[in-house]
Amino acid sequence: MQEVDIIISGGRTLTMDEKDTIFHNGCIAIDGNTVVGVGGSEEMAARFSGRRVIDARDCLVMPGLVNGHTHAAMTCFRGLADDMELMDWLNNYIFPAEARNVDPELVYWGSALACAEMIQSGTTTFCDMYLFEDETAQVARQAGMRCLLGEGIFDFSSPNAQTPEDGLAYSRMLIEKWADDPLVNIMIEPHSLYTCSPDIIKKAKALADEYSLPFALHLLETRGEVQQLEERFGMKATRFLKELGCLDERFFAFHCVCMDEEDMKLFADHGCKVVHNPESNMKLASGIAPVATMLEHGIVVGLGTDGCASNNNLDMFDEMGTAARLGKVERLDPTVLPAKTVTRMATRDGARVLGMGDITGSLKTGMRADIIMIDLNKPHLTPIYDEYSHIVYAAGGSDVKTVIIDGRIVMEDRRLLTIDENEAMARVREIAERVKRSLET
Amino acid sequence: MQEVDIIISGGRTLTMDEKDTIFHNGCIAIDGNTVVGVGGSEEMAARFSGRRVIDARDCLVMPGLVNGHTHAAMTCFRGLADDMELMDWLNNYIFPAEARNVDPELVYWGSALACAEMIQSGTTTFCDMYLFEDETAQVARQAGMRCLLGEGIFDFSSPNAQTPEDGLAYSRMLIEKWADDPLVNIMIEPHSLYTCSPDIIKKAKALADEYSLPFALHLLETRGEVQQLEERFGMKATRFLKELGCLDERFFAFHCVCMDEEDMKLFADHGCKVVHNPESNMKLASGIAPVATMLEHGIVVGLGTDGCASNNNLDMFDEMGTAARLGKVERLDPTVLPAKTVTRMATRDGARVLGMGDITGSLKTGMRADIIMIDLNKPHLTPIYDEYSHIVYAAGGSDVKTVIIDGRIVMEDRRLLTIDENEAMARVREIAERVKRSLET
Repeated sequence: MQEVDIIISGGRTLTMDEKDTIFHNGCIAIDGNTVVGVGGSEEMAARFSGRRVIDARDCLVMPGLVNGHTHAAMTCFRGLADDMELMDWLNNYIFPAEARNVDPELVYWGSALACAEMIQSGTTTFCDMYLFEDETAQVARQAGMRCLLGEGIFDFSSPNAQTPEDGLAYSRMLIEKWADDPLVNIMIEPHSLYTCSPDIIKKAKALADEYSLPFALHLLETRGEVQQLEERFGMKATRFLKELGCLDERFFAFHCVCMDEEDMKLFADHGCKVVHNPESNMKLASGIAPVATMLEHGIVVGLGTDGCASNNNLDMFDEMGTAARLGKVERLDPTVLPAKTVTRMATRDGARVLGMGDITGSLKTGMRADIIMIDLNKPHLTPIYDEYSHIVYAAGGSDVKTVIIDGRIVMEDRRLLTIDENEAMARVREIAERVKRSLET
Repeated sequence: MQEVDIIISGGRTLTMDEKDTIFHNGCIAIDGNTVVGVGGSEEMAARFSGRRVIDARDCLVMPGLVNGHTHAAMTCFRGLADDMELMDWLNNYIFPAEARNVDPELVYWGSALACAEMIQSGTTTFCDMYLFEDETAQVARQAGMRCLLGEGIFDFSSPNAQTPEDGLAYSRMLIEKWADDPLVNIMIEPHSLYTCSPDIIKKAKALADEYSLPFALHLLETRGEVQQLEERFGMKATRFLKELGCLDERFFAFHCVCMDEEDMKLFADHGCKVVHNPESNMKLASGIAPVATMLEHGIVVGLGTDGCASNNNLDMFDEMGTAARLGKVERLDPTVLPAKTVTRMATRDGARVLGMGDITGSLKTGMRADIIMIDLNKPHLTPIYDEYSHIVYAAGGSDVKTVIIDGRIVMEDRRLLTIDENEAMARVREIAERVKRSLET
């Protein structure tokens, strides 16, 4: 009999392992930051005793969700401007609001609010691109969230970088500072091909390769972008990325709304991955990413919310529901993107996109203990015929009851244990007043 | 100074009146079942004193939501079968499950669970079509929900009607029984043109006309249906409905995914209305209803969740978010279906579709007091720049704190006051076991 730190017992336990094993009366044993056993409650009771036992009856227990693409600090701009032409939205609201307001304080408190919201809705790992990412790293560390962070790199100056070289230097600083951290991981994120010169893309990729880090950018988000890049490069954007040496197993791209067969073949051949952001793509009227076709090509696809200026929340349950429904209507085929596949995109496959598939995204012995419990004892989750169906089509982030990340309980019975949400809300409200005033002048 | 039953004071108060008036520090006075005053808190304090005062600081106060199309009792089949071809889903799961299990008990408890879920997510009025609707009427009455109910009428026999004439007789019974009820309203609902003969449609319409009742059916939901009806009638389905004398101001239709310009002109010319069900249409891969174009034609459009077998919840906030995003991606134009328009679809315009626009859907003196309060003091609703944006793009049903219908508080601080949700959940779980067994044999 092994004594362990935490036992979660009696829940419908979805492992999201390679066989999608479900234990209808399951048990998970956690010691330190690691899952040391998963199985049926009876069998596990004979093997483990817990210093702490969490009763998961009436709960669905599953891996924490992986938000594959967001800009956490943009919670400060949630609902600032909606329902506008992209260029009106960017040039008259988002860009000036950012230029006049983004500083370490905004990023710190915006990220703190985002971490509160993400934990409350069951996300345990997030992939972020923004400015002053060291602030986001500090917040995530305090909140106990797993993350993969990259400073956004642009050709033009940003509030945190006069030149793109400054952005690369800041990225190198992040790499060194957060090396070997158990939760914070650093990656390299030039914003896009339309905001970075080929030279900067190459330098950024060289930095990623120097440290064997993931490398990602926004790609093929709109038809306008596709056309512009093809005119500029004289070839398809994906082919240009290949010529620059960017396409490999550590490469992934956000959006990919306008991918065609040739793009998908290139991605599949090189082991590149995609993060799908359906709610943002719909809200900005970018189009519908051909996700079912990507999956048929064998491309690993994760899910992301994008930032709060274009979503406007960070709820991965909403995103799963939208992904499943949008995939069906895109193909006019109700059998594509079934609930189990979409649940995988938000867990195991999402973790694989980020290069973290051996750490998080499924519940197996040896994995980090990133676990959420969903309270099933609610009218809108009654009755239950199929667990995946409820996760994708019926549940919402507010149904998450308890969240464990890296073996640490960060939310219990909806009470956040690592973030003062009232302080984060108060600070972001002050920042929002400043943002509003900055746009009036 | 007038003494009234309830005053709701200090909230951001969205009236959804014809001018979309917002009081940022607003107050609503309720006496009996009626709104007797709406205005700014200071002005109202001089006019009214309340026997009961509800503090709405940090809350958004707005009309209760109108779910324009559902099959409430189908909560019993929530998640029974998903991700299937329509005919596989209907013929191998939904129809046999219904034929073997639908009885007054199932409809009673399924509707009770639905009422619990709808109140918890801010719906105060719902339009229902199913079988044994007298059970749904009784439940709604006890739960204190406003509703417009119609027995589903088919050519073939249903668990509640051997013949379509039985269905019409049952409808007449409902009309007589619930006449003058303050909450329960009856309408006539033949299921669709593909499940009812022209003769039955005509008889149903005659019954509706005899009592001046609303009349509605499923229409143009799939391309297959459009083709089938055109072949059968030798003309467009909408034109055929016109020939039958069905198109008038009391006519509305569910889905209308495949409406073309001519259909819309006919609807607009005759004052017919539409209920849009985006999540169901996506999940069943029916297609995308051209809602932006309908609105340009001047058609009044409401929103509905459809039943829990094809959604799989009854959350109108989810439905609003999906409607706004789907409308944009359908047109590839981010300016269509802005948040305010979509909020109207779920409130004032939804009520107009049901012929109840002078009773509910907006907050004005003389309207029934159907009111919800949304708790804004949450990370995912912080900061707030625009109220409509939060309602459509950031909030969920679980953010609803307090619900008043017809002047009666039916949920307070998330506690249901008129339904025993635990009993409803327990009964529906038992029914689900029976349903499962019935499909095994």
